[in-house]
Amino acid sequence: MTYCVAMRLQEGLVFVSDSRTNAGVDHIAVFRKLYVFGLEGERILVLQSAGNLATSQAVVTLLRQRIQHETAGHLHSVKTMYDAADLIGQTLLEVTNKYKGQDADFSCSFLLGGQILGEDPKLYNIYPQGNFIAATQDTPYFQIGESKYGKPILDRALYFDTPIDKALRCALISFDSTIRSNLSVGTPLDLLVYQNHSFHVPQGRRLFDDDPYFNMIRSQWSEGLQQVLAQLPPPPSDYWQ
Amino acid sequence: MTYCVAMRLQEGLVFVSDSRTNAGVDHIAVFRKLYVFGLEGERILVLQSAGNLATSQAVVTLLRQRIQHETAGHLHSVKTMYDAADLIGQTLLEVTNKYKGQDADFSCSFLLGGQILGEDPKLYNIYPQGNFIAATQDTPYFQIGESKYGKPILDRALYFDTPIDKALRCALISFDSTIRSNLSVGTPLDLLVYQNHSFHVPQGRRLFDDDPYFNMIRSQWSEGLQQVLAQLPPPPSDYWQ
Repeated sequence: MTYCVAMRLQEGLVFVSDSRTNAGVDHIAVFRKLYVFGLEGERILVLQSAGNLATSQAVVTLLRQRIQHETAGHLHSVKTMYDAADLIGQTLLEVTNKYKGQDADFSCSFLLGGQILGEDPKLYNIYPQGNFIAATQDTPYFQIGESKYGKPILDRALYFDTPIDKALRCALISFDSTIRSNLSVGTPLDLLVYQNHSFHVPQGRRLFDDDPYFNMIRSQWSEGLQQVLAQLPPPPSDYWQ
Repeated sequence: MTYCVAMRLQEGLVFVSDSRTNAGVDHIAVFRKLYVFGLEGERILVLQSAGNLATSQAVVTLLRQRIQHETAGHLHSVKTMYDAADLIGQTLLEVTNKYKGQDADFSCSFLLGGQILGEDPKLYNIYPQGNFIAATQDTPYFQIGESKYGKPILDRALYFDTPIDKALRCALISFDSTIRSNLSVGTPLDLLVYQNHSFHVPQGRRLFDDDPYFNMIRSQWSEGLQQVLAQLPPPPSDYWQ
C-alpha cells in the first residue's frame, strides 16, 4: 500500500509520501512515490502516486521521456496546471488501456500540485479513470492510498490558512498514525514544501526511521495524547453501571 | 456503514456501537446494532453487527426465536462462549446461503462478547464466512465496520489492563474521530459495560447527539489535540526550506 498527502495552503504547497510498496506481506520494498518536474523560475510540478507500481512508473517514465524527446504536449510545455493534470490523466489511460481485460488491478491514482507562471498554485487529485478534481479553500488537502487512519488529525487541525510549519507537523502526525496502524505504510518518508510564487524547485527531504525531529514529535505527540486522554473527566457513575 | 468496537479488559467488557445505516447517502436510518442476550446470574452475551442489515436482523431474529421455541442448541442453552460464537456463525451461514449466487453483498460480521458461568469472559470476532477469532491480552479489542479512522487512538492508548472508565473514554474518542471523518457513522451510540464475573445483564445506555458528557469530552479532546499539536516544536529550518 501507500500513503500520500498533499496540501494547498495560503503560504504554499506541502507534500509528504511514504515509500513502502508491497505485493503481499513478504514482498516489501522501498520505492519513491514523489516525483518533481519543473523549470526554475517558471514552473514547478510535484506528482505523488498510489496504486499499481508498474503503472505509476510507466506514467512517470513516459512523462519524463516526452519532456526530453517531444517539442510539445509535455509537462514542461503545457500552459496551465489544468492542462498538466489532463495530460497526466490521459497518459495514465494510455498505460492502463494496454492491459485492459486482464483480471488484475492495474489502476493507480495521482496527486499533482504546483504552479506555472501566470497562475495561482493548484492541487489536483487525479483518479484512475483519468479525470480529476481541484483542491479549494474549503478542502485544502487530498490523500491517496491508505488514507483513513491519518484523516482525523487533518480534519481536526488543517485549514487553508494553517502556516506551513504547523501543516507539516500535522502531516507528519498523520503519517505517524498511519504507520502505527498499518504495516503496509512505512518510512522513509519523502517530504517537499513549495513556497507559493517562489517558482523555486525545492530539493525536498527524505526522513528515515532514525530522523531525530520526526522521532521527537512522534513521541511528544504520543505522550500528549495520553495526557489529554487521562485528563478527560471520567463518565458519570450512572453512565455505565 | 457502521462502526462497532468491543473490548475485553481485565475488569470487564466494553461495547460501543453506532446506529446509522445507509443504502446510499439519501437512505439513512437509525437501527440498533447492539443486542443483549442473557440469563441474570448465569450468562450474558452481547452481539454487535456490521454489514447487510437484512442479514444481521435475520440472524438476530432466528437466535431469539430459537431461545423461545427450541429446547436446545440456542444461546441460552450452549455451554460455552465458543459454542455460542459457533452457533452464531452457523446461523449467519444459514441465512446468507439462502441468497447465494445473486449479485449483491449479503455478508455481515459480528462481535460477540460475554461470559457463561464456569468460564472467563470472552470476546469473538465472527467473520462473514462463519468462522471466528478470540481476543487475547495482546489484542484486547476488535472493531467491525468503518474501523480505520478510530483505530489509531485505540492502538495508542488501549491495553488489557486499562481501567474500564478510561477504556470507555478511549472508545468514545474513537467514535468521535470516526463520526467526524465519515458521514455514514452517526449517533445515537449504544454503550454497554459488563463487569467481569458479575453475571449481571446490564441495561446499557444510549447516547444522543446532545449528551452533555459525550459533548464535553469531544470538545475537550479536540482542544487538547490542538494544544498538543501547537506545542510540538517546529521543524528545523533546513528541514523544508
